[in-house]
Amino acid sequence: MLGRIDVHEHGHVVLEKMMGDELDIVNNARVSFDGESTELTDRDRGLINFLMKNRHSSPFEAIVFRFDVRAPLFGIREWQRHRIGSFNEESARYTEIKEDFYVPAPDYVRDQHGKPGAYFFKPIENVELVDETRYHIERAQREAFRTYHSLLEKGIAKEVARTVLPVGMYSRMKWTVNLRSLINFLSLRNHEHAQREIRDFAVAVEDLVTQEIPYIMECWNTHGRQPI
Amino acid sequence: MLGRIDVHEHGHVVLEKMMGDELDIVNNARVSFDGESTELTDRDRGLINFLMKNRHSSPFEAIVFRFDVRAPLFGIREWQRHRIGSFNEESARYTEIKEDFYVPAPDYVRDQHGKPGAYFFKPIENVELVDETRYHIERAQREAFRTYHSLLEKGIAKEVARTVLPVGMYSRMKWTVNLRSLINFLSLRNHEHAQREIRDFAVAVEDLVTQEIPYIMECWNTHGRQPI
Amino acid sequence: MLGRIDVHEHGHVVLEKMMGDELDIVNNARVSFDGESTELTDRDRGLINFLMKNRHSSPFEAIVFRFDVRAPLFGIREWQRHRIGSFNEESARYTEIKEDFYVPAPDYVRDQHGKPGAYFFKPIENVELVDETRYHIERAQREAFRTYHSLLEKGIAKEVARTVLPVGMYSRMKWTVNLRSLINFLSLRNHEHAQREIRDFAVAVEDLVTQEIPYIMECWNTHGRQPI
Amino acid sequence: MLGRIDVHEHGHVVLEKMMGDELDIVNNARVSFDGESTELTDRDRGLINFLMKNRHSSPFEAIVFRFDVRAPLFGIREWQRHRIGSFNEESARYTEIKEDFYVPAPDYVRDQHGKPGAYFFKPIENVELVDETRYHIERAQREAFRTYHSLLEKGIAKEVARTVLPVGMYSRMKWTVNLRSLINFLSLRNHEHAQREIRDFAVAVEDLVTQEIPYIMECWNTHGRQPI
Repeated sequence: MLGRIDVHEHGHVVLEKMMGDELDIVNNARVSFDGESTELTDRDRGLINFLMKNRHSSPFEAIVFRFDVRAPLFGIREWQRHRIGSFNEESARYTEIKEDFYVPAPDYVRDQHGKPGAYFFKPIENVELVDETRYHIERAQREAFRTYHSLLEKGIAKEVARTVLPVGMYSRMKWTVNLRSLINFLSLRNHEHAQREIRDFAVAVEDLVTQEIPYIMECWNTHGRQPI
Repeated sequence: MLGRIDVHEHGHVVLEKMMGDELDIVNNARVSFDGESTELTDRDRGLINFLMKNRHSSPFEAIVFRFDVRAPLFGIREWQRHRIGSFNEESARYTEIKEDFYVPAPDYVRDQHGKPGAYFFKPIENVELVDETRYHIERAQREAFRTYHSLLEKGIAKEVARTVLPVGMYSRMKWTVNLRSLINFLSLRNHEHAQREIRDFAVAVEDLVTQEIPYIMECWNTHGRQPI
Repeated sequence: MLGRIDVHEHGHVVLEKMMGDELDIVNNARVSFDGESTELTDRDRGLINFLMKNRHSSPFEAIVFRFDVRAPLFGIREWQRHRIGSFNEESARYTEIKEDFYVPAPDYVRDQHGKPGAYFFKPIENVELVDETRYHIERAQREAFRTYHSLLEKGIAKEVARTVLPVGMYSRMKWTVNLRSLINFLSLRNHEHAQREIRDFAVAVEDLVTQEIPYIMECWNTHGRQPI
Repeated sequence: MLGRIDVHEHGHVVLEKMMGDELDIVNNARVSFDGESTELTDRDRGLINFLMKNRHSSPFEAIVFRFDVRAPLFGIREWQRHRIGSFNEESARYTEIKEDFYVPAPDYVRDQHGKPGAYFFKPIENVELVDETRYHIERAQREAFRTYHSLLEKGIAKEVARTVLPVGMYSRMKWTVNLRSLINFLSLRNHEHAQREIRDFAVAVEDLVTQEIPYIMECWNTHGRQPI
């Protein structure tokens, strides 16, 4: 395990394994040249910066990560829309789902403003409404799990009983992804337009990756956090 | 629109558009040769059969379909794990979700038998248990939508309120996919190990496609409905 | 056939088939909303422009093209590095390659200037050197084909004899690709840094596509011809 | 470097790096269960065998390899048709290509037999014809390189001069690929229908991988070396 960050009450992002380092980007980009670098020099750093600036993106596929993620289902759903990468997820067909679900912290209870294409969200200031909202979100999911458990007890198949479970329930998955695809994930999900909850997970992913390849991530930030 | 099949109470599969025909497979496979066929001959059919039998699969990517699908979220989730294809799905962040949800018909209420790796399912024969199960699955989802609507009325953002919605709710998506990837989808989802609900959708997909390219689908069946 | 552009002496780009139109982009993007547009309105155009500007790219995968391409092998090689798309290419293992090969026109004979990362090319002005170069490029490939034919005549397998063939020989392929991947192809290949020869093919692709979906391509140009 | 196998006179396959091991397949497949295995037990081996037999293929994407490959261009071309994976290849636009090219060993000079769809190849027994063939394949490529060098000396751009180079020349690339895609590569390329030259490279890939994950490869052989 290379690092772990807990997110919200029940979630986590664990960086389990990694293949490659910043030097590999250089050697993959320079495959045309005779020798290979064995230590990252200033000239190598210049090349990394050049590749990032000009979106010569394929060498960034030479670094690969594997994560273990636990997140609410509505976040997992957005995550899996990123098709370049591998997912293995807990199955609710054959496994009894643990009764963990997402309830927003008080400052995460928010309302929506703005127009189509430019929506934004603000924490609700009315403390009573916040409490009430959290109570109902908690209660509704608790009730759904109660129904789920009672159906299981009566012998109903898990794949049928899960129909009632809420999208706030937690799921767990393994995610194998190369650096290029991961950066494209971050460009959308660690972004002000992303839903705040999944953004918290994307921040965790970015923090873990930045510890491993700080110079590449610095270049990506310098050049505007664009897709590559 | 080339065809439409309704599935269960609220679902559908619509084949909206299609590019290519059986002759295109032949011409793509024979790109090495001088002329192109303009009519499907017996020799062409022999080639299609040969390609399918020997899994020379790339020519089958020359036919592309677009579907409009409405299905319960737990089915949409399995669908989107097929990464070779394009999805555009209704967003619960900005749209109020319509109160449609999946309740299994009486003969779809089932229990699970067998061992890991060899599970199977049987309709429950106890009529009272079936009724009770359907009642609870209906009631729990109705309650979840009631909470959802009450949160929306109080001004809570849709992306927060949706946390309580059940995975039995319906979602809608556009699916653009080539024939090779579609066949791989069918090999897993119109299969006895697939969950019965998603299998009903896969059957609809297969029926619509078979109307358009009957000979190819016949070859696929002849050679064992394998992935290609 | 929707359109054909000949390129250089022996090459071509044919747009054979297409699925979808500009309206489909709108309906794919708005899948969340109730109705579907049936005619492209100003508001729809505004949405297309918004999607392109903000790189909401997935709806652009709803339009798919099939091309027939004949190009020199060194161009085909670059083309096939674009992995999102389908290729069926003439096989030199089983087919005798026709003796067509690329000889640069006089103004395509060029020398290289600049530094790594910023190379550029200029037509050579010395007419004698241009003629001499064209003569040698023509003669060397003619000789290679002569050896190829003599080996075939002696009964050597095509897949062995082809070893001597030049990368300037022509190959032919079918290319099935969605609009998003095609735009990413154009962003790299119809670009001043692309090799001039493949750029001529990319220009042909862009011209054919622009005839079919002029407003989308106008938006792409307006917003800087970036990858999406 | 985990292993290196030289192929033919100038080629090689080097396994540079690898992420994951056989235990990872088990833990990825069982993500639904609570604990994770820390040592490969007989029960774990049973699970791997079950996954391979029933083509539950996604867990095999959890192991990733990076190779450095040097091979003749006609082999590189077939290799890069495998789209699920990452390639960084030597560029003939900016680099002077080294004068190494493929000349078949005497027992690799062959003729073609059989019918379309069932071709096969046999070494030519006529020693004189073999010698003559090798002489011409060597001479033609030598001549092509001579033209190439003379054009470079006269100041012609590399990207223009390379037009004359033969597809028998060597190129070098980095290949990052997950185990599932690698197995699909082997199912086609280490196969009796593959061209003998690329098959030699595929054998080298398989030997290097088998050293690292012997049990998985044993299962794949047991179950018929099918695509997964």
